[in-house]
This record gives sequence, structure tokens and C-alpha cells, in this order.
Amino acid sequence: MPSNALIAKLQAIVGNEHTHTDGDLSLWEQDWRQLARGKALAVVTPASTAEVSAVVQACAAAKAEGLDVSIVPQGGNTGLVLGSTPDDSGHQVVLSLRRMQGIRAIDRANLSMTVDAGCILQNLQDAARAEGLLLPLSLAAEGSCVIGGNLATNAGGTQVVRYGNARELCLGLEVVTADGRVWNGLSGLRKDNTGYDLRNLMIGSEGTLGIITGATLRLYPQPAATSCAWLAVDSLEFAVELLSLSQKHLGAGLTGFEAMEQDALRLVEKHMPQLRLPIDATAGQAFILLEYSDDESEERARTRLEALLEQAFEAGLLLDGAVAQSLDQAQRMWDIREHIPLAQAQEGVHLKHDISVPSSSIPSFVARAKAALAQSHPSARIINFGHLGDGNLHFNVQAPEGADARAFVTSEAQAVQSVIYDTVAFYGGSFSAEHGVGRLKPAELLHYKDPVALSLMRAIKQALDPQGLLNPRAVLPMPAQEPAHA
Amino acid sequence: MPSNALIAKLQAIVGNEHTHTDGDLSLWEQDWRQLARGKALAVVTPASTAEVSAVVQACAAAKAEGLDVSIVPQGGNTGLVLGSTPDDSGHQVVLSLRRMQGIRAIDRANLSMTVDAGCILQNLQDAARAEGLLLPLSLAAEGSCVIGGNLATNAGGTQVVRYGNARELCLGLEVVTADGRVWNGLSGLRKDNTGYDLRNLMIGSEGTLGIITGATLRLYPQPAATSCAWLAVDSLEFAVELLSLSQKHLGAGLTGFEAMEQDALRLVEKHMPQLRLPIDATAGQAFILLEYSDDESEERARTRLEALLEQAFEAGLLLDGAVAQSLDQAQRMWDIREHIPLAQAQEGVHLKHDISVPSSSIPSFVARAKAALAQSHPSARIINFGHLGDGNLHFNVQAPEGADARAFVTSEAQAVQSVIYDTVAFYGGSFSAEHGVGRLKPAELLHYKDPVALSLMRAIKQALDPQGLLNPRAVLPMPAQEPAHA
Repeated sequence: MPSNALIAKLQAIVGNEHTHTDGDLSLWEQDWRQLARGKALAVVTPASTAEVSAVVQACAAAKAEGLDVSIVPQGGNTGLVLGSTPDDSGHQVVLSLRRMQGIRAIDRANLSMTVDAGCILQNLQDAARAEGLLLPLSLAAEGSCVIGGNLATNAGGTQVVRYGNARELCLGLEVVTADGRVWNGLSGLRKDNTGYDLRNLMIGSEGTLGIITGATLRLYPQPAATSCAWLAVDSLEFAVELLSLSQKHLGAGLTGFEAMEQDALRLVEKHMPQLRLPIDATAGQAFILLEYSDDESEERARTRLEALLEQAFEAGLLLDGAVAQSLDQAQRMWDIREHIPLAQAQEGVHLKHDISVPSSSIPSFVARAKAALAQSHPSARIINFGHLGDGNLHFNVQAPEGADARAFVTSEAQAVQSVIYDTVAFYGGSFSAEHGVGRLKPAELLHYKDPVALSLMRAIKQALDPQGLLNPRAVLPMPAQEPAHA
Repeated sequence: MPSNALIAKLQAIVGNEHTHTDGDLSLWEQDWRQLARGKALAVVTPASTAEVSAVVQACAAAKAEGLDVSIVPQGGNTGLVLGSTPDDSGHQVVLSLRRMQGIRAIDRANLSMTVDAGCILQNLQDAARAEGLLLPLSLAAEGSCVIGGNLATNAGGTQVVRYGNARELCLGLEVVTADGRVWNGLSGLRKDNTGYDLRNLMIGSEGTLGIITGATLRLYPQPAATSCAWLAVDSLEFAVELLSLSQKHLGAGLTGFEAMEQDALRLVEKHMPQLRLPIDATAGQAFILLEYSDDESEERARTRLEALLEQAFEAGLLLDGAVAQSLDQAQRMWDIREHIPLAQAQEGVHLKHDISVPSSSIPSFVARAKAALAQSHPSARIINFGHLGDGNLHFNVQAPEGADARAFVTSEAQAVQSVIYDTVAFYGGSFSAEHGVGRLKPAELLHYKDPVALSLMRAIKQALDPQGLLNPRAVLPMPAQEPAHA
């Protein structure tokens, strides 16, 4: 089948106006970080699960007839590892879920909502809030990312320490399989032991095993009040001890535990002087933004936090601490945390690493990685911050002060990354805690992943997508197809 | 290869004294409910992951040479659906993990422990408690079930409303695959997005995709105090409203929400009069045992519970309520709940159903199922109780008063089950919420499961165990093997 025959079929399925082949397709072909621009055979934006199914069937049939074609499912296209954009072959169909934005049902008593995959995360947060409920998935891209992509990549965010990743917030899925069938696994059940866990297999598979078209999400009651504290500590060892104390003292009320080393805050001070730090950056080696949510009242939220601080001072863990006295003050603390990546960008291009280790290993990991980098790249600057409560750090590396940032990044990326990922591996950690593998990190996957795990993954991919139709360049890249013999 | 050559190989691997072929093997061949007695080719009890791997390789090689052999992994053998006992063919090797009882590591700061699959659940609870931590998996069999089986069956229990099923308590696994390789997926990470979720695929697969030999478990701080209340309500509608109110008011402090209909308590009164009910069984149509855990103090646990009751009374949800004034009183409330199955056993054999529906659908499900049974089995008695907070009911059916219980169970099991499971399906529920499929419920799986899900499951089984070596009669029974041509 020639490719224009396939395009005609796609037009018949989703309509001409929702099949894009000409003009500026950068919205779909360009990734958010602008790392690589691809070239799509076509972009289709189906309106329903039935249309997604028909698109997949049409592509599968064309591929069976010898056409070199595959599908890249795309949500909000905010991913950081090239998982949702096409390669430059011109053989990939981008299937965007963005038109599927329906909230199918909210079940208040069951604390669940069933939604289309293309719903923007923030809209779902708002819909839950309107019912007095909480969808506790929150990340920087929430205004434009969509829930299907959040689930396909098992998104993390700032509330994982209490509520888990996207995986833990999903009760059921609707998925179009690689041969275009619809698996109806939507379910509001908390317990169901009837067969293999297909839901979690699809979650985090980055569109390589099926296309998520709908989901049932787990909701929570809104807490009565939330409060924050900004804490200075002398080292990451103390930060980890403070984490244990907070978990013990605050239990499930601990909804955020972010850590920032001094150098990260100095960059914020330098580039965003209007963001006043609650405590001077010289007051400690590391700082913690701790968020506490209480089921009773604002007053209790503050008194509980203050009691924790008192205990922490007595235990000698804290150098200084400030409790937000208003929602506004709490928001300003979060603003500082969230401006670190922006301050780093102002300082120049740099190398990003999204790693995790057991939280108990964080101090040794950081010490060891810094020592190794001090050997290999003596003047490189380390900007280290992240979700300490989840063992997840953004351990970023910036060119030496005054050096050519672009040149440093280009020449040193591979060497710096090896130092860091080897150290991560030494502590049993992950080279991609939140962001996934996509088309950016398959080499790291092959290098660092357990070989038996890799072979199980390959067997599963082969079993569920024998044609290699779904996102074949991502995660476990399949060999390039032989020239069509049709 | 003749079977005695395989047995000699197994003896060489695990030792003669750990390879059982003669004598009384009922410990391994007989299931806990005594539903069916199997006949094993041999029972082996390896001492290490390496020995498990060698046993699997030996069996796989023998099967490749034409011997009709397969493996049934077994933990504590406390399962309820014949998932861990051999069939009566004499061709299955029972591989018991019971000798692998090591606690490999406890990481307090990371809130995790890494253990051998054969560790008895209660021993792990105790080991966590000794560190001031909580392993919140708790079920009736905890004194003899083992963690490998808990994970292979995704066990539930009484604390799921707060902490989730066994699945949610597992951070990493070590698994021997169907070809005898060892996948080292042990990990204390909270975040790791490097490839497919093999961990959750293995969890709940009932030994059909791999043999779990080790696990890293998620621990929690011990709460400061736990308190209980016993509540009488006029209907299950009010019980569900009370659940919502409790979730809102108590948040993550709500660690138990069990419901019992009046008839279930009347059986306890009849057969265990020494267990005094906190509130007379005539005081309500349904009763709730609510457990609350507080991170602060015993005093606060009680005052929070009392405040909830006050609100519930004001909202007209409660007929009566009693808050336990001591740990002893709380334990007595749990005793009553846990004696319902025993009281039912005293009343005679009966039909058990372990179902789930969205908790919002529980009142309509129960009304509809009762109405349908009133048509089909007018005098049958329904004993309904369970984990309402998880939408999970043990909706059991007892012969009419005075009737021959055994005869009723024998003749009506299929008809009663169809009425109940059809009603469960109508509400999008599960015919096996906690117990799994095993060799007891594959017919129900084929009847009620989404056909696309079934075909994905078959493809995965074929991909990960192409020989059909691992527990081939369970979950998705494979066709009986052709006679060996060797």
C-alpha cells in the first residue's frame, strides 16, 4: 500500500481537517525541550476511542502490506526524553489524543473519576476540586500535559512522597492495542485479583505496548489545611535524618519534602533577587521545603509543624527554620523551589540528570558523585536539588564559572553523565526516576538495566506488538525495517 | 528423559533430604480448604535463589526432552483457590520456598526491608516493629502464609483502605524466570521509570510467569495510637455515606472500615455468646467496625473518633455508636469481626464469594443480588460482611434454616454463584477481589473477563513461559500436553 492510500484512509476515519500532512507541524514534530525536530508522515487527531482503534487498524494493515509505517502516540507533548515526537524518517504517524477531552464520570462516594486520555491535567485537578476532592498529581507542566501522557510515562511530581506516582493514582485503563482492538479495563475497583496486571504494564510503557484512551483515577478528600516550612541544615545527612523524623511525626500528613543545596539557592538569589529567601542561603549547606497537610484545621497544621521543628532543633538536626504564616508565604516558598531550573537556565545551558537512589543513600551518593566529578571535571558546578522524600534528585552540572557553557555541554555531556550514572548504579539507583526513556535514553537502558529484565521486556514487546507498530524507536528501539518488498 | 532421571537431578541440586517423593506429602499436596488433594511428582525445598534457578533449569531441560513435567511454586500453602497445590497427574513438581527465610536487609531511613520469599508474614511484621516500623499487610493467615505467596497472589487484608494491597507494599522483586534465569529487580526506589513494570506483572500472576524468590517491601512509621469504634446504621446506604464522611474527616488516619450486616452478627451471637457485641444486633441493619490511627497520641485518637461520631449523629447517619476505651476493647471489636467466618462454619457448610464493586455501588449491588437470590433461592440465607472501605464483600450464602447444608451447597453452588457474579459484572465488579484465580476459578475468568484482556494475558504467558512450565493449570489453564514422543 502506498503511503498516500494510507493517508486517504486516515482522512476517511478522522476527517480531512483532523489529518495534517502539510504546513507547519512543529506543534507535533518538535519536542518541548527542542532537542530534535522530527518529520511525520501525518498527524491525526481522532475524536474518540473508536477512531483511535480504526487509525491503528489502518496503519497495521498498511504495515502488513509492506508499508514502512509506525505510530507515535502523543498527549500534551511535554515529555523530556523524545518519547512523543516522530523521528525524521517521514514514516511515522503522530496520533494525538488532544481532542479527547471528556470527563466521563465522577464517582464521589467511590473517590474516582473516569476521563478521556486527552484531558489536560489541570482541568482534572479543577474538576476534582469542584467536587471537594483532590487529584494529587501535580507537576510543572500541568497546564498543558494530558493525563494519557502522564500515565504512559508514569509521571511523578511534587506529591509522590504521600500519594505515589501517576501509577498509584490509576484504578483502571482503556487501551487500544497494537492490532487496534479496545481493551476495556476501566474500573473503579480497589481490589481485583482476576489475572495479570495489564494496567501497570501499560502505565510507563511510553506508548510502545498500547495507546491509552481513557482512565479511571483515584481521588482523595481535600485536606483541611496545608502549611509549609523552610529549613536550613548543615548537611544532607541531617536532611535525611530530618526526613525520618518528619515521617514519624507527621505520618501521611507529610505531602512534600524537597531539598536544595546552597549553590542552587545562590543561583536563584543571583538571577531572581525579587524572590526573597526565607532564610539566608549562607545559613546552611542544604535547605528543605517541607509541606504538611492536615485533616483538621489550619491552626493545627501550623502547631504540628512548629512542634516538629522544636523536636528537630532539640535533636540538633536544624540550623534554622521558618514556618509559613499564610498561604501566600507558603506559595512563595514553592516559588523559590520552582524557580531553580529557571535560574539555572539563566546561568547558561547545562547538563540535566533525573536520578533516584534509596533516600538513605543520598548523602553518600552525593558525596561520591561530587568527588568523582571533582576528579574528572574539577571546576564544573553542581546544582543539586529535588524530591528528597522520594530519593529523587535533579543532579545537574553547569560549566565552570566563566567558561563557554555551550562548548562544555557539547564536549562533556557523555563523560559527566557516565560519572553520575555509574555512581547511581553503584547505589542501586535509577538513571531516569521520573522522565522515562523515550528516544533519548535507550543506550542508557541497554547499559544499566538488568539483562534479564531487558530480555523479558523484549519478549513482552514482541508478544503485544509483533509488527513493531507502536512507538518503535522509543524505550527498546527495534532495528530499522528492511525496505518494503511490496 | 525419564522422570527418575529428573528426580536424581533435583536431589543433586537441593539434596536428598529436601527432595520428597515418598511418604505423606499432604502438607504440600493438600490445599488449606481441603477442596482437592493432588499428587506431586516430587516436592523440592531449595535453600537459595541459585537452587531455585537450578531446579527450574533442570525441569525446563527435562520438558524440552519430552518429559511431561511442570512446576507449582508454593509458599505457605494457605491460598483459597488451589493456586499452590499440584493437580492429580503426578507430573507436577512442587517447589516450596519455605526454607528461604532470611531477612536480607532493613533500611530504616529508606523505610524498606529486603527479604527472602519464604519469610512468614508475621515474622516480617515483627521484624519491622522491632525497628519501630510498620509492615501494614495483615490477614488471617499471617502466622503461616509467606511473603512470596502474598505477592504472587497480591494479598489484601484489613488495612487496604489506607495502605493498599500487597502490590502497593512492594518496591522490588527478585524472580526466577521460566527458563531459570534470575531477574534481579530488588530495589528500594520510590521512583524508577526505566522500562516496563515487570514487578507488577509478576505480582498477582500466581506463579505462572516467574517464581518470586525475594522482595523489597515498603515500610511505614508506626502510628502513635490506634482506636476503634463500633457503629450501628440503618442501611448500607448510610454505611457508604459514613465511609465518605470518615474519609473526609479522618483522611489517611482511616485504617479500617469493615461492614457486617445484622444476620452475620446474629450468627456470632448464636455460636459465640461469650463474644459480647458492643451494641445489640437488633439496633441496626448493618454495623461498621471503624479503625483510626493517629500520629500524635491516644487521647487525640479517641477525641477525633468521638468528633466523627458526633458529626455522623448530627447528619443522621448513625443509630448508635461505641468508641473503644482501651486497646483491649478495640481488640474485642476485631475479634467479633474475625469470628464471623468461624460462626458461619459452625452453622454448616456454605458458599463463599469474595467480590468487589465500586464502594458507591455496594447498596444497589446488595439489594439487587438479594432480590435475584430471593427469586432463585427464596429461603437461602445471606451472610454479608467485608472490607467496605475497599468495596470488597464476602457475600456468602447459607442453606435455608433447617435444610441439609451439604446437599444445598452441592446442588446450588453453580446457580447461586451465577446469580451473584452476574450481578457483580453488572456493576463493573470483580468475582475475585482478594483470592485470585488459581485452579478454582479459570472458568469464571474466561466467562467474565474482557476478551481483549484475556488475549493479552495469553500472549504474555506464551512470551514469558513458552514451554508452559510454570503453574500451567492455574489462571489460564493450558491444554493438556500431548503424550511424550521421546
